[in-house]
Amino acid sequence: MESIEVALAEHSYQISIATGNLERLGEHCRALKLGQKVMVVSNPTVFGLYGERAMAALKQANFEVSHCILPEGEQYKTLASIEQIYDLALEHGLERSSTLVALGGGVIGDMTGFAAATWLRGINVVQVPTTLLAMVDSSIGGKTGVNHPKGKNLIGAFHQPRLVVTDPQVLATLPEREFRAGMAEVIKYGIIGDRELFDRLERATSLRQQDIDPELLSTILTSSATAKAIVVSKDEHEQTGLRATLNYGHTIGHAIESATKYVVVNHGEAVAIGMVAAGRIAVALKLWTAAEAQRQDAVIDKANLTLDLPSNIDLDQIVTTLKSDKKVKAGKGVFILPSGIGDTQTIAYEPTSTAVNVVSDPLIKQVLTAMLPIAAT
Amino acid sequence: MESIEVALAEHSYQISIATGNLERLGEHCRALKLGQKVMVVSNPTVFGLYGERAMAALKQANFEVSHCILPEGEQYKTLASIEQIYDLALEHGLERSSTLVALGGGVIGDMTGFAAATWLRGINVVQVPTTLLAMVDSSIGGKTGVNHPKGKNLIGAFHQPRLVVTDPQVLATLPEREFRAGMAEVIKYGIIGDRELFDRLERATSLRQQDIDPELLSTILTSSATAKAIVVSKDEHEQTGLRATLNYGHTIGHAIESATKYVVVNHGEAVAIGMVAAGRIAVALKLWTAAEAQRQDAVIDKANLTLDLPSNIDLDQIVTTLKSDKKVKAGKGVFILPSGIGDTQTIAYEPTSTAVNVVSDPLIKQVLTAMLPIAAT
Ligand SMILES: NC(=O)c1ccc[n+]([C@@H]2O[C@H](COP(=O)([O-])OP(=O)(O)OC[C@H]3O[C@@H](n4cnc5c(N)ncnc54)[C@H](O)[C@@H]3O)[C@@H](O)[C@H]2O)c1
Ligand SMILES: NC(=O)c1ccc[n+]([C@@H]2O[C@H](COP(=O)([O-])OP(=O)(O)OC[C@H]3O[C@@H](n4cnc5c(N)ncnc54)[C@H](O)[C@@H]3O)[C@@H](O)[C@H]2O)c1
Ligand SMILES: [Zn+2]
Ligand SMILES: [Zn+2]
Repeated sequence: MESIEVALAEHSYQISIATGNLERLGEHCRALKLGQKVMVVSNPTVFGLYGERAMAALKQANFEVSHCILPEGEQYKTLASIEQIYDLALEHGLERSSTLVALGGGVIGDMTGFAAATWLRGINVVQVPTTLLAMVDSSIGGKTGVNHPKGKNLIGAFHQPRLVVTDPQVLATLPEREFRAGMAEVIKYGIIGDRELFDRLERATSLRQQDIDPELLSTILTSSATAKAIVVSKDEHEQTGLRATLNYGHTIGHAIESATKYVVVNHGEAVAIGMVAAGRIAVALKLWTAAEAQRQDAVIDKANLTLDLPSNIDLDQIVTTLKSDKKVKAGKGVFILPSGIGDTQTIAYEPTSTAVNVVSDPLIKQVLTAMLPIAAT
Repeated sequence: MESIEVALAEHSYQISIATGNLERLGEHCRALKLGQKVMVVSNPTVFGLYGERAMAALKQANFEVSHCILPEGEQYKTLASIEQIYDLALEHGLERSSTLVALGGGVIGDMTGFAAATWLRGINVVQVPTTLLAMVDSSIGGKTGVNHPKGKNLIGAFHQPRLVVTDPQVLATLPEREFRAGMAEVIKYGIIGDRELFDRLERATSLRQQDIDPELLSTILTSSATAKAIVVSKDEHEQTGLRATLNYGHTIGHAIESATKYVVVNHGEAVAIGMVAAGRIAVALKLWTAAEAQRQDAVIDKANLTLDLPSNIDLDQIVTTLKSDKKVKAGKGVFILPSGIGDTQTIAYEPTSTAVNVVSDPLIKQVLTAMLPIAAT
């Protein structure tokens, strides 16, 4: 049983990682002296698999437990779903001391967190992540929110959970593609700051879901959660720029997701491709050695993630999307690029620049063109 | 020109109060080094009166200014209005460094603050209050939000403004009834903590809008904003209980508003009646002298606020509403009661208790019955 602290003064909390932790959810919550009422928020798939166990554990710890089941899928990560949570929060009389438990992946986690941030100006939320991505990333750090019809995650709030309860056992039922997506974020932590984690991933013969043994899984979960916790502790509200290192692979990744309308590749797959691209940009800028970039790509490949861009992708659209990224202010943005395994640098993105030490659109296009699948070139 | 600080570490901000301040809105914002883009949020009445001046002042300070006009009235204080703000925020490309300016009363202020709290997980908001209530109360303290179809202010967030810009001149166009409503909150500050302000109100021959001279108005605005700022500084998120003193007159006031479906009396009128009732409860509990309660009532009367309950009001419903108040936990709540002019105590509310030192339903009913208008008794 591992317990990792996210140190944020009066907003501090623990990430508890242990096999069988779902059964101890009630105990964990009890220890925090949360109010009597708890509402579990989930979707039909996850609630069907784990809802009963979570509810039973909470009831056994004498909580008054209700639940709210939202429709499944990113397309329901909307204000309308948040209103469903509000309606049930009202019906069940949730008070300021009450708690929402997010039982699910990042979609459920983000929505439950946002509802908790905004119901009665803030009630407790406990995250119980059930996807690898949620365990290593989205459940930690307090970013919550929903999508606007015209853009992802535009509506939201920072609202730290009171606790994160991770039980690796629930990953047994996770679809392989979702597992793979989570592995992209794990590899990211290795590249941006945890050389030891990267070495461990490199030594494994396979990083596929069916091949990973419990011990490696435990290392992955603990190291990744620790990496995220450290960054969040130092930059709770994305102000110092440190938290931006977590965007490694994400700038191009997001543009790929957007250009393929979020249906061809999922987030993790896009981030993996984004890391491959960022690695090659770093090599072109002479920040990184080709040999280390190659080691990164090999680990990505071992996780069964593709290194190529989706075929038929429109490179001009990717570049247009990059420029309209909400993080690109006044036409200028930044790229997080590796300068070693476990090290990054922040490099200016100036779309039309011809300087040799910044990321420009021609450079991005040149790198991406080389990443088109053979058949499409 | 007065400048009052709300001291909240990195969330600190100034409340600037000065005649002609609206013309200096741009300068004030510029001094804060806010980002280039500013969107003014208002309603047709207020924007018609002051929109042009506010926009011109911002443009003159070189901001890129857009506006969002929401329908007027508390019934539009909804998530649907917030979505209108989001849509325009997106259309005008607001970024994390951008600013929403709330130009209006508490309704516009609460909604604009909530939109700012939740767009891109938090952008800047500057409050430009145009009602007396907003100047002395709602623009200060960072409580933001909207109504749920089944309850007021259930959806919201704490999000401090970057600045409050008050120009007393705009009160010239405020309907008399709205002015009166704001005076109820001013009197509240006197009773709960500012004896000097109370004395000043007591010495005035009239507290009606048409009779108040600029100097008294200035005292009122400065003292009230200071009173609110002090409480907010010490209890930003309503956790220590100190901020609860601001609820003086509000517990019964809210129940009256709710029992009359928010159409018979407005918030300030209900708070005035609530203070009269709380004063009498305090006298009944021997916390307060009848003479001081009488002085409070005389000041309320001088502001042209009624001391009586609305006729035909259902006292049972008031009591039922009190018990379902979101602040009443596990059937128990508290009342803020005066124990002197400038002094309060927090007294337990136990609906069915027969103890002599707590507020109970029979005591409340007894006091309220005596406050029914003559014709209705
Ligand atoms: N808040 C943050 O910091 C942050 C960080 C990264 C991503 N996100 C967000 O997270 C979301 C993606 O999260 P995700 O990848 O977890 O996807 P997801 O929540 O959509 O879950 C993926 C699928 O797996 C199913 N599922 C979940 N757990 C399962 C289990 N144990 N067994 C079987 N099926 C299971 C879900 O029902 C869903 O269909 C995106 O909306 C993204 O914006 C947020
Ligand atoms: N956030 C807080 O801490 C807090 C505190 C108290 C009240 N509130 C909220 O404030 C709201 C009430 O605010 P309010 O009393 O200011 O009402 P309001 O915002 O509805 O304004 C009252 C009316 O006056 C008009 N008006 C405003 N300024 C004017 C001017 N200068 N000239 C002419 N007309 C003008 C408005 O258009 C409106 O019709 C409620 O929703 C309440 O919940 C919030
Ligand atoms: Zn990611
Ligand atoms: Zn009030």
